Amino acid sequence: MESFIEYHSRSSGLYLKIDKLLYKKKSKYQEILVFENEFFGRVLALDNLIMTTTRDEFIYHEMLVHIPLKSHPNPKKILIIGGGDGGTLREVLKYPIEKAILVEIDEEVINVSKQFFPELSISFNDKRAEIIIMDAIEWVKTSNEKFDVILIDSTDPIGIAEGLIGEEFLRNLKNIMLENSIVCIQSESPFYHLDILKDIYFKFKKLFSNAFVYTVPIPTYPGGYWSFTISFNALKFPAIRNNYKVENVKFYNDEIYKSVFSLPTFLKENLE
Amino acid sequence: MESFIEYHSRSSGLYLKIDKLLYKKKSKYQEILVFENEFFGRVLALDNLIMTTTRDEFIYHEMLVHIPLKSHPNPKKILIIGGGDGGTLREVLKYPIEKAILVEIDEEVINVSKQFFPELSISFNDKRAEIIIMDAIEWVKTSNEKFDVILIDSTDPIGIAEGLIGEEFLRNLKNIMLENSIVCIQSESPFYHLDILKDIYFKFKKLFSNAFVYTVPIPTYPGGYWSFTISFNALKFPAIRNNYKVENVKFYNDEIYKSVFSLPTFLKENLE
Repeated sequence: MESFIEYHSRSSGLYLKIDKLLYKKKSKYQEILVFENEFFGRVLALDNLIMTTTRDEFIYHEMLVHIPLKSHPNPKKILIIGGGDGGTLREVLKYPIEKAILVEIDEEVINVSKQFFPELSISFNDKRAEIIIMDAIEWVKTSNEKFDVILIDSTDPIGIAEGLIGEEFLRNLKNIMLENSIVCIQSESPFYHLDILKDIYFKFKKLFSNAFVYTVPIPTYPGGYWSFTISFNALKFPAIRNNYKVENVKFYNDEIYKSVFSLPTFLKENLE
Repeated sequence: MESFIEYHSRSSGLYLKIDKLLYKKKSKYQEILVFENEFFGRVLALDNLIMTTTRDEFIYHEMLVHIPLKSHPNPKKILIIGGGDGGTLREVLKYPIEKAILVEIDEEVINVSKQFFPELSISFNDKRAEIIIMDAIEWVKTSNEKFDVILIDSTDPIGIAEGLIGEEFLRNLKNIMLENSIVCIQSESPFYHLDILKDIYFKFKKLFSNAFVYTVPIPTYPGGYWSFTISFNALKFPAIRNNYKVENVKFYNDEIYKSVFSLPTFLKENLE
């Protein structure tokens, strides 16, 4: 296997040369592939879908984390659902939070990240982090803790991650939320997966009383353009609500916060 | 030839299936390829670089045109350099302008667009449009007309289009500019061509006394993320300066105008 194509549709996709195959193995849940690519660095793919690369991972992880965390007046307890590569946890721990719980179904993803992605897995041993290997759908049912911010950092919501956009799961999330809790989820490509994005947006709007979509460019994701859906619960709308200055960020800044909620016309119309 | 890969680097690129080959021929200047793709519709490639597709062309053309045209208090005379597919001209003519001159070096691109891209070439016969087949570098040297807005809609500035970012050409543009003229150029991918983007930005800043970069997602361009560089001359900075309501736009809206100038941290730092 010398090259890799992630098909975004039957007739289009991203081509990457496999300069060096580093790992390929089926875990209990999915096929995990790690390879070296001259341009993107190390690439992690699950079931042939690119999850992250060392070159562009900063965009996804910064933007999944800093938009919700800057929106909360005082984020102290954070729940990460999925996120086994560790990038989301790394960004969360840049804040003076008290505790971050990461619930990942597939321990192998964590092990592979520790082995091949040290820049991502750097925070697994942080004292404020607790790692739970379990299906988040089950974990949420029985948890007694409540969280200021919940981040759903899942694979594409087909297959094992499908339940993470199910109404039952989202309703159960409400039991671990506080009045000011924020929930944020990666919600796929506005070009390729508009139906999934709309499905998530309208479910969030219904269940959490408000929802907003923001978008960012991510070169290794379908269409190079990605969406996140966020609900502010009692906080009601996007706004920077704390003065904490996040450091070592390559994409996020406070101007970007204000701009990413401005959506192109075709997307706005689809969310009406 | 059943599939097409546009290489963005030696090790990465965009894969598109050629569902039907419609045209492939070397013109005097470049190889012109047109094919049908299930997802993107009709695809136009010049020297193996995708110029436009019927599915996503609206983003590039709207954003090259409406940002500068909404920035001018009263845009009446527009110059388009390149733009042989006609998409930029189509967007320009949505405004109540007096005259648009399009200077394209390769007549075959215009002919191919007329034959295969009727949605793009729809405006070539508009009374306000004048089409000149000539190297814009030569044309600009001898033109006596002056323009409110100049749009440089070129192929990648290597090969035949290289001169369009040369200092001599840009200096000659000043002779056809008015005090309030705006110049806007497509300036490549912030991920893949940061050096070219910086080169253009610093030249514009020097020659036209100010320059701003704005970015948009474009799925079929390298990295799915594209930049434009714009100079406002005596107008000094980006702002919406006319009330004309552009119709039939799928990407542009006035909120988008305000947001696209907010740049990610890595890009801001590179333009300091």
